[in-house]
Amino acid sequence: MTGRLDPRSGWTASGCTIAKALDLLSTRSAFLLLREAFYGTTRFDEFAERVGISEPVAAARLRELVDHGLLEREDYREPGQRTRQGYVLTEKGAELLPVLVALMQWGNRWEDEGGGPVELRHRGRCQQPVTAQLRCAAGHQVDLAHLDLAERGR
Amino acid sequence: MTGRLDPRSGWTASGCTIAKALDLLSTRSAFLLLREAFYGTTRFDEFAERVGISEPVAAARLRELVDHGLLEREDYREPGQRTRQGYVLTEKGAELLPVLVALMQWGNRWEDEGGGPVELRHRGRCQQPVTAQLRCAAGHQVDLAHLDLAERGR
Repeated sequence: MTGRLDPRSGWTASGCTIAKALDLLSTRSAFLLLREAFYGTTRFDEFAERVGISEPVAAARLRELVDHGLLEREDYREPGQRTRQGYVLTEKGAELLPVLVALMQWGNRWEDEGGGPVELRHRGRCQQPVTAQLRCAAGHQVDLAHLDLAERGR
Repeated sequence: MTGRLDPRSGWTASGCTIAKALDLLSTRSAFLLLREAFYGTTRFDEFAERVGISEPVAAARLRELVDHGLLEREDYREPGQRTRQGYVLTEKGAELLPVLVALMQWGNRWEDEGGGPVELRHRGRCQQPVTAQLRCAAGHQVDLAHLDLAERGR
């Protein structure tokens, strides 16, 4: 990987959008709460239990994710119960899916002997396994050796 | 997104490989040190300066990344200087590229008015912009609504 960012001394990584993304996702529990939202969890108690964090921690993290616009509150009501608030992904939150899939496939390959507990497949007739891949707009798969970086607008 | 993981109550996310991946990457500075390694940074002082962390913090984080097998130490020598140790990505570390690209493109879209400071392009004749995409083994792009999850081996 190289390109017009060489030499590195000629520019800094200020304004780095990886850093900006991490400002919103800096804790392990934030990632895992988002994982649960992708799995379809909406109820507060289910978030806390499935991520394995205390209710005060879950409340604080969910509030942060709402404040950052990744989740939004949605009323729900179960038979015979009062209305409660649940949490669902916003468009902004849903667009983090490639990040979570890329983390999962890396963990499957490098940190689990069995290849991971969950399989992702393309729904419908194809049913083929799904991975996060780097592709260019022409459709080619791109590896690290063929990735050029440049400052935008230069 | 649904599939054979429904109902959620029938399984737990124990053994989740997203969580296992985050065990190795739980800090913002770990991600940013890896970003620098992808950009080609190898020298200790350059890592600390470019990530904007103190040398003791950089030393501790780099040691963790080496212990986890994401970076490895490599000797280098500049003219007239003694041999020093630098840090380069291992294969395991290099395979995190889709995670960082996915974080960057999300940050470019949602957290930066200018679309982000860095462009990724496919080196060579094509030079098309590169993104992290979800694709199945048949080559189709897959969106959240068409992603099935299943417990492996069921």
